[in-house]
Amino acid sequence: MIDIIALRRDLHTHPELGFTEFRTATKVVQMLSEMGYQVIYGRDAIDDDSRRGLPKLEVLEDAYQRALREGADPDIVQQMRGGFTAVVAELQGDEDGPTTAFRFDMDALPIRESELDRHLPQKGQFRSAHEGIMHACAHDGHTSIGLALAERLSDRKFAGKLRLLFQPAEEGVRGAYAMVKKGMLEGVDRLFCMHLGTDVPSGHIKGSSAGFLATTKLEARFTGVSSHAGASPEEGRNALLGASTALLNIHALPRFSSADTRVNVGILEGGTGANIIAEQARMVIETRSTSEETNLELERRVRQIIEHSAAMHELSASVETIGGAIPIRCDLELAELAVREAKGIPGFTHAETVANGSALGSEDASYMIRRVQEQGGKATYMIVGSDLPASHHHPEFDIDEAVLSPAVSLLERLARTL
Amino acid sequence: MIDIIALRRDLHTHPELGFTEFRTATKVVQMLSEMGYQVIYGRDAIDDDSRRGLPKLEVLEDAYQRALREGADPDIVQQMRGGFTAVVAELQGDEDGPTTAFRFDMDALPIRESELDRHLPQKGQFRSAHEGIMHACAHDGHTSIGLALAERLSDRKFAGKLRLLFQPAEEGVRGAYAMVKKGMLEGVDRLFCMHLGTDVPSGHIKGSSAGFLATTKLEARFTGVSSHAGASPEEGRNALLGASTALLNIHALPRFSSADTRVNVGILEGGTGANIIAEQARMVIETRSTSEETNLELERRVRQIIEHSAAMHELSASVETIGGAIPIRCDLELAELAVREAKGIPGFTHAETVANGSALGSEDASYMIRRVQEQGGKATYMIVGSDLPASHHHPEFDIDEAVLSPAVSLLERLARTL
Amino acid sequence: MIDIIALRRDLHTHPELGFTEFRTATKVVQMLSEMGYQVIYGRDAIDDDSRRGLPKLEVLEDAYQRALREGADPDIVQQMRGGFTAVVAELQGDEDGPTTAFRFDMDALPIRESELDRHLPQKGQFRSAHEGIMHACAHDGHTSIGLALAERLSDRKFAGKLRLLFQPAEEGVRGAYAMVKKGMLEGVDRLFCMHLGTDVPSGHIKGSSAGFLATTKLEARFTGVSSHAGASPEEGRNALLGASTALLNIHALPRFSSADTRVNVGILEGGTGANIIAEQARMVIETRSTSEETNLELERRVRQIIEHSAAMHELSASVETIGGAIPIRCDLELAELAVREAKGIPGFTHAETVANGSALGSEDASYMIRRVQEQGGKATYMIVGSDLPASHHHPEFDIDEAVLSPAVSLLERLARTL
Amino acid sequence: MIDIIALRRDLHTHPELGFTEFRTATKVVQMLSEMGYQVIYGRDAIDDDSRRGLPKLEVLEDAYQRALREGADPDIVQQMRGGFTAVVAELQGDEDGPTTAFRFDMDALPIRESELDRHLPQKGQFRSAHEGIMHACAHDGHTSIGLALAERLSDRKFAGKLRLLFQPAEEGVRGAYAMVKKGMLEGVDRLFCMHLGTDVPSGHIKGSSAGFLATTKLEARFTGVSSHAGASPEEGRNALLGASTALLNIHALPRFSSADTRVNVGILEGGTGANIIAEQARMVIETRSTSEETNLELERRVRQIIEHSAAMHELSASVETIGGAIPIRCDLELAELAVREAKGIPGFTHAETVANGSALGSEDASYMIRRVQEQGGKATYMIVGSDLPASHHHPEFDIDEAVLSPAVSLLERLARTL
Repeated sequence: MIDIIALRRDLHTHPELGFTEFRTATKVVQMLSEMGYQVIYGRDAIDDDSRRGLPKLEVLEDAYQRALREGADPDIVQQMRGGFTAVVAELQGDEDGPTTAFRFDMDALPIRESELDRHLPQKGQFRSAHEGIMHACAHDGHTSIGLALAERLSDRKFAGKLRLLFQPAEEGVRGAYAMVKKGMLEGVDRLFCMHLGTDVPSGHIKGSSAGFLATTKLEARFTGVSSHAGASPEEGRNALLGASTALLNIHALPRFSSADTRVNVGILEGGTGANIIAEQARMVIETRSTSEETNLELERRVRQIIEHSAAMHELSASVETIGGAIPIRCDLELAELAVREAKGIPGFTHAETVANGSALGSEDASYMIRRVQEQGGKATYMIVGSDLPASHHHPEFDIDEAVLSPAVSLLERLARTL
Repeated sequence: MIDIIALRRDLHTHPELGFTEFRTATKVVQMLSEMGYQVIYGRDAIDDDSRRGLPKLEVLEDAYQRALREGADPDIVQQMRGGFTAVVAELQGDEDGPTTAFRFDMDALPIRESELDRHLPQKGQFRSAHEGIMHACAHDGHTSIGLALAERLSDRKFAGKLRLLFQPAEEGVRGAYAMVKKGMLEGVDRLFCMHLGTDVPSGHIKGSSAGFLATTKLEARFTGVSSHAGASPEEGRNALLGASTALLNIHALPRFSSADTRVNVGILEGGTGANIIAEQARMVIETRSTSEETNLELERRVRQIIEHSAAMHELSASVETIGGAIPIRCDLELAELAVREAKGIPGFTHAETVANGSALGSEDASYMIRRVQEQGGKATYMIVGSDLPASHHHPEFDIDEAVLSPAVSLLERLARTL
Repeated sequence: MIDIIALRRDLHTHPELGFTEFRTATKVVQMLSEMGYQVIYGRDAIDDDSRRGLPKLEVLEDAYQRALREGADPDIVQQMRGGFTAVVAELQGDEDGPTTAFRFDMDALPIRESELDRHLPQKGQFRSAHEGIMHACAHDGHTSIGLALAERLSDRKFAGKLRLLFQPAEEGVRGAYAMVKKGMLEGVDRLFCMHLGTDVPSGHIKGSSAGFLATTKLEARFTGVSSHAGASPEEGRNALLGASTALLNIHALPRFSSADTRVNVGILEGGTGANIIAEQARMVIETRSTSEETNLELERRVRQIIEHSAAMHELSASVETIGGAIPIRCDLELAELAVREAKGIPGFTHAETVANGSALGSEDASYMIRRVQEQGGKATYMIVGSDLPASHHHPEFDIDEAVLSPAVSLLERLARTL
Repeated sequence: MIDIIALRRDLHTHPELGFTEFRTATKVVQMLSEMGYQVIYGRDAIDDDSRRGLPKLEVLEDAYQRALREGADPDIVQQMRGGFTAVVAELQGDEDGPTTAFRFDMDALPIRESELDRHLPQKGQFRSAHEGIMHACAHDGHTSIGLALAERLSDRKFAGKLRLLFQPAEEGVRGAYAMVKKGMLEGVDRLFCMHLGTDVPSGHIKGSSAGFLATTKLEARFTGVSSHAGASPEEGRNALLGASTALLNIHALPRFSSADTRVNVGILEGGTGANIIAEQARMVIETRSTSEETNLELERRVRQIIEHSAAMHELSASVETIGGAIPIRCDLELAELAVREAKGIPGFTHAETVANGSALGSEDASYMIRRVQEQGGKATYMIVGSDLPASHHHPEFDIDEAVLSPAVSLLERLARTL
């Protein structure tokens, strides 16, 4: 039987960034196959062109080689080469019934993990072995819960069909959309998504969440003409002038009375030397709103500002969508079910139907939830509480491992109940 | 015989802005007609559509009514109504010969004249009677010189044809272009333009000038959509955001290695209240360069920045040329002639061929000079020195009236010499 | 007895801007005095230095002279010269009891009133006689209601003391603060403020309002050094560069998670000519927030941006507060009282306790309301519905005069009831 | 005897960036020592704290280790560790006389060298072995000329003292200043600096140069506070807003009438992710002017804009000078000497006294030249022509190796002549 704490610590030690979860996903495929699940992965589980914010080829390749060095099964990981790290597994229950799906995310963050002694992974010797990468948002816990759940349900003592979705690249809200596009949510009647932590203490469970924001992540590139800043400045077309103008004007977009909004240019970089008119600049932007429609309007205005900030200085500009999410509207029926089931499980002391999900900002499980609802199915996004020594995305973030097993029990009950 | 000092003082007391020189031009027409000149004026002397930076209709009309109140001949001024204040006069000499032209400008500036006792017009009681308008660039002197010259040459004792050009709206470099377009420089063999002062002391004369800059004056209007800044900011399209972006980026245009350049947004105004998203903004811009070609390139870039600063915020924008000048290249032959002739005139102690004209910036006599040169004629722009108590365009500017008569004598000699 | 419709039309024909309500306030003083009220006005009713956004002296003087020409009582209006146009009247009831106050605003807007025939004031020949000024926010109605109310209550058949506050300069949220500072709200137990219209239809009455925003209105002035843009641009210190930089960065201030916010630079103007580096620029700004504290933080940041945008270009800058308001929290007790009383009045068909006041944005009655509540009193801001042919501040705005009389009746009942 | 072409090709194959010329400088020390020169290097030849734009420690260390791997003498290079790569050598002639100095620069550029067959270093198999670094400005030729000159003069058949200065980090104008500060130019009577190429063809020689610009290179760092762009944007202090504002306003600095100017922000980079308010931003700026004084004024204004762009958004800012140069005024006497001497050397077909040096922009030999002149000495900056297949700093740049030997002969003659 899976030692869920050991499994979580193994994953914690080997964190992998979005679309490079080669070791993690390979392990998931192996374990699920051994349990008797029918497993789909690689290009079969995720749509190539719909993947957003894909890392550069050399980054993908370096991570791939690292996974091989760390013992990933060569035959399996080969199918994932190039960033196809989604896994979907199915199992038929011993009775007829609806299709119930559970979604788990697998990726880590570009954060250097704390080396302080008070940080349990450091003290317990399972700190990240991948310098500069860290599981600082509990996805190691999520994946472990998913695998332990799979093991328990491998007895097939449930009605209907079980589908387990292991998603890459939740950070940056990049991976879910491409799994939906590949059809991985077709036929799902009930979808349960979950997150550990998010300011909810250990022992508490929230059956659904509200407050996730619609968001779009964009990457803009400005291309001008370089020239010698002393000898012929007028022959240049200055990409940094265009980018700085865009940055100021994007931030100066109006507040909306129709909905709460956010806008941020989080990265700007360009130019090569003091004496060169900058030829290139790159910008990473996000928009957010409580309203999907308002978020789209904000995105439209951001793109327009970029286009004309570039044209003003005779630059060319391109804008690529590198991430996105929509608001989540959970089905109360599933939330209530979760609350009911939680009550019988030791380890849960409080259960409520609705959590405020704004602590997380945005989630691309939203695309999966909407797809299920579009087909007439029900879906919810639950929060399983966990005391945290530091906030999400902090170098000292850690989960309370005591909550893992009750979480598995809750999901097990949800799978076995109609 | 004309009392040139009294004439100058009369003009000084009644200053009129560009294209509103109704009283001045009417007086010029009257006096020249009485001397026997053939006088063209009104729509016959200036091209309607080529007039740049024309004041608003109500401004033109107010000035027109003022001229009537001040005794302008109603029949003559009627022909100038609406801003047609150019006058051209011709006289045939008693021998055959080339056509020699002289150009004088007539307009004043929107400056409130000093009331200090040390300011001669105040002390001598010929301070401006038109509050807020002032002859602070010596054009009252120029016009007086032109009329006194006309009187002396009315004896027809010269060879060839004499043409006197009295130009409106030199300030803002607006009027000369439209006289050229109307054909007022056709057939001119020799053109003499002149200016008093410009850092050249009394008694000095420069036969030509160098250093005038090509320039373009533009007026841009941004039109957006107003909305309540509290209730629905997103419904507005903010003209001030577009205009401010344009202003910063216009100033941020590169220095040119090909020529010296200048660029300035001299006026920006827009918006109506704190709680309204600004619907309108207006901007006045100038570009300059030692190179006409570089000035055109600068103007092109300014227009492009305006267009896209507007489009960025979904504003419409229009840009109108309200003034312009080109560099002046004087013919040394005429400069040398002027120097030679000046030597015999009491009142001139020094004469040189070339002055640095950059003290004046730009001059639209440049269009007249080029037109003459295009036809194979010769032209020059002379400086007649005058001690000044304060610099040009200053509320205490005044000319040394002692230089007026020698200046007339110099021009008279130039007209009588081949 | 007062003909309230005739009175309103007289006021409508003679609209006066904030702090220039010389004719209106004089009439108010006269009428109230004749009714037996003890009337305080001029410097006794408003604190000199706390008046915000006071017009220039010549504007105040012109309006003062106009009021005299239009028959304002010279002795009374003399006390208001310079913009002291507040009036406060008191009357002791025939029994002991609490002090009940009513507040009415008197000022008009700088809007040119419609001349379309469908506009009733045009058709009915009571369109504004002050070109460019208009009662487009119903304050003519408010003042009329206040005077009619005074007349009805002049019988003293009520318990306690009655206080009537006639406030200048509500537009721009400028006048109430200075009346509070002068002590005009001291001792008030119950304060009723009201507004006509605001999207509430005729016959409806709302006993209180929610949603008013805290706001600050600022005027910033940038002073640099002018210079000739062609001859010596580097000697200038460009006020427009500083102002444009401030404008963009003020709009680029972050959204707040703590509260809803707004920020707007509504006016920017500076510079005198194309060829002059601009010496002066002026900017009018507003901040708003659902939270008073967040509004203060926004204001702090705006001031900081102005200071450093100026210093960046070696300009000096000054910032003056020209208006302000705080959020309003109404006492439900008074709202319920108003609803109860309205039910017995013909002309009111619907009554509710709470209206959404955000349609108005901000109101400086908020300072009066807070002062009353600070002393342990109760206050509310009621909406008396009125069908409107056009929205507030529109050239075709007009009120439904049929609602005036029922409004007086409602206030009368509130005054007579404990 | 030195094979100058082989030597140049060896240096070309092993290019080293500024302050990392460990292999090159070690070779220079070794060769000069063997020839009998008294050699000063390491901390003795350059002032530690005056070195500008020093690379990061790890960059210095990596280059140091590479030099060791490539066979640099460990005892010598050890003295240069940390970026002390200047070398100064002296030799006493066999007669008394003045001190004559020659200056050579040794560093390469961060450019990836062309692999095209038409590029001689590629075809001749001496292309850069240090990927991404290239001798694209002829400094390999300069160093080779210096060493060949040293060899010829090692016979001591000259009057006075010979001093050879091998300078690091000319690119970015960073190294000369620190050698001057260390006193390496003290006592010099005649200083000859030279450059190959610069649009002067093979066979031509210019005895001096004009047109070098004063310049300052600055690095600015903005530090704010990061925060989650969705959850709490107002808690951040956005370094990119400050940096973009600075960038626009730096470019918008006025043109100067006092001198020609240039200003450029060549690099801007900041921020870490779409959803994070950027905490850090970095900017690299240069100012230039034909006037040293104007350049200082420009630098002052740039620093002021940075300071207040930061303060406006509550950021801290630091600015470091990372490079600089002053204008060069050559002594005509030495220029004429060079022209005279060149006439006798086969290989030189044309000789002129003055070249326009603006093709190079700026040169920090200017500090050495000024120091010599301050002591009453004479100095010049000569151009030895070379046909070039591509312009300086281009991946296909190459020199005409046929000019190396005549250049050595010219310098030899200058050293032997008084």
